[in-house]
Amino acid sequence: MAKDKILLAHGSGGKITHELINNLFVKYFRNPFLEKQTDSAILPGYNEFLAFTTDGFVVDPIFFPGGDIGKLAVAGTVNDLAVSGAVPKYLSCSFIIEEGLLISDLEKIVASMAEEAAKADVPIVTGDTKVVNKSKCDKIFITTSGIGFLPDVHKKISTGPDIHPGDKIIINGSIADHGMAVLAARNDMELQAEILSDCASLNGLIRSVLDAGINIKFMRDATRGGLANVMAELSSGKSYGLHLDENKILVQENVRGICEILGFDPLYVANEGKVVMVTGEKDAEKALEIIKKHQHGRDAAIIGEATTEHPGKAWLTTGIGGKRIIDMLAGEQLPRIC
Amino acid sequence: MAKDKILLAHGSGGKITHELINNLFVKYFRNPFLEKQTDSAILPGYNEFLAFTTDGFVVDPIFFPGGDIGKLAVAGTVNDLAVSGAVPKYLSCSFIIEEGLLISDLEKIVASMAEEAAKADVPIVTGDTKVVNKSKCDKIFITTSGIGFLPDVHKKISTGPDIHPGDKIIINGSIADHGMAVLAARNDMELQAEILSDCASLNGLIRSVLDAGINIKFMRDATRGGLANVMAELSSGKSYGLHLDENKILVQENVRGICEILGFDPLYVANEGKVVMVTGEKDAEKALEIIKKHQHGRDAAIIGEATTEHPGKAWLTTGIGGKRIIDMLAGEQLPRIC
Repeated sequence: MAKDKILLAHGSGGKITHELINNLFVKYFRNPFLEKQTDSAILPGYNEFLAFTTDGFVVDPIFFPGGDIGKLAVAGTVNDLAVSGAVPKYLSCSFIIEEGLLISDLEKIVASMAEEAAKADVPIVTGDTKVVNKSKCDKIFITTSGIGFLPDVHKKISTGPDIHPGDKIIINGSIADHGMAVLAARNDMELQAEILSDCASLNGLIRSVLDAGINIKFMRDATRGGLANVMAELSSGKSYGLHLDENKILVQENVRGICEILGFDPLYVANEGKVVMVTGEKDAEKALEIIKKHQHGRDAAIIGEATTEHPGKAWLTTGIGGKRIIDMLAGEQLPRIC
Repeated sequence: MAKDKILLAHGSGGKITHELINNLFVKYFRNPFLEKQTDSAILPGYNEFLAFTTDGFVVDPIFFPGGDIGKLAVAGTVNDLAVSGAVPKYLSCSFIIEEGLLISDLEKIVASMAEEAAKADVPIVTGDTKVVNKSKCDKIFITTSGIGFLPDVHKKISTGPDIHPGDKIIINGSIADHGMAVLAARNDMELQAEILSDCASLNGLIRSVLDAGINIKFMRDATRGGLANVMAELSSGKSYGLHLDENKILVQENVRGICEILGFDPLYVANEGKVVMVTGEKDAEKALEIIKKHQHGRDAAIIGEATTEHPGKAWLTTGIGGKRIIDMLAGEQLPRIC
């Protein structure tokens, strides 16, 4: 493996991405905001705090069951803000387009962005368009950035410093849908039951939990690297372990099938409409009840808890009663999934 | 010309870009912030206003005399905020990288971004990295977004509603350096005197003018489409004309030479360190004095004024005394210049 060149794995969100971020970006850009490495930077505003985030979207194919690159670019950035505890307020979008893209395809994407922005109730307020020569990019790449207003009381949600053994881990539904939907679309697979991406803006769902006065101790969307990556990152270096019970984690039948055929572990597959929350034991049932009422939370479940066992690690009790450590993935499981 | 496909001209910043923006982006994303079509969106913050901007950078080649894609990505976004009258506060960066890029090249770019961010005194607080397969992008594309704090008193600077005949037009130096530097680098031209891009963050220069109490009525950086585009856009639909005196506009000798050889009009060539300001007649000399003291303003000049003649148009008195209208460029003069 050449060490002097960028590999697909550098974009995986796993260990090698972290190395690149630490050895290059954080090293050179060093400042207290960036060093926190949360999905949204938490920034002093005039009076209260701002959340600020950016994400590039290069998904292939650009249209897939359940969404497209435009919907993904809006929902992904809305979610990065929302999981920080912020109220998403404004979005920007920057298009890099390959010469020759059908304007009708661009229009579909733009219409889909507008629809998702309206659903999430976050306006797209500024943008940019660049066009590059044919074969110098792949149809279209979209980078969205977002600003949210962050009440002081939610400032800790993205880092989760107050988690203790006994706290519960909640997710708002099934895992691995997005990754497998894109993979099936990319390979033109003929499936008995179509897999839909779970791509959706979760700010409404999250707001309903916060507004009910639930103390969400930690929240993150389980995108690249899947649920496993969120757990591995959160537990790393902590005095507690994070335990998941495989029996509680929903994987839809058709998704499980394609994962098994192709050799993917659903825990590591990207989601685009799933948020992982950690709350105190007492809050968990109430939170679950609220989430289940929401369109994007019907299949929500408590899937695990923080433990005194295996401090600093995430670990899984498998369906047949075995135990395994959930490590961060080193390389790339599925390039261009988002 | 196929009407159903994206052309390089759609990314030119000229007429065809405007058509795309209006017929697609503004049509679908419609909201009062976006509709202003300023480089930075002006947004209500908690108490004061926020400026929010984004720009994708796809310059080819990624290294050129006077800068590189990283320096450009930082300075370009800092400048978009600064010309809106805002104090640039935070930057984000999103990298889309082609598999196989030399990590040493990425490091040069990142170091250059860090250096420019430090010069401009604006931290890069959040980012994202995606990697795409070889030949699916061209080395590296960078999208930077920025947030600035905008004092209420400067809110009109980006639209310039208070311009009247007699007001003066100021620019902080020579034009067309960036475009010709990139073009010369792209074509490996052997020049007697190397052309350096003017790529630079101008927030310091701009702040010194505003802090002196100068009433800047309008400000914009003259990037894609050059000085001509700024003048054509500003004058469009207005009750005044904008007159430029070609004799006052500095074009460096080597830049003029290459423009003449290759058939480019320097008025339309991209700059990356040039700001156009409009002030009242009385303020103009004072503003010029302040700008000239600055490292990036030594060759500043008053190059024209708002007129009662030719309302709604920008027009030029040529070096030999002729007159011509400065129209917005329809298509693409130089693709991938920024």
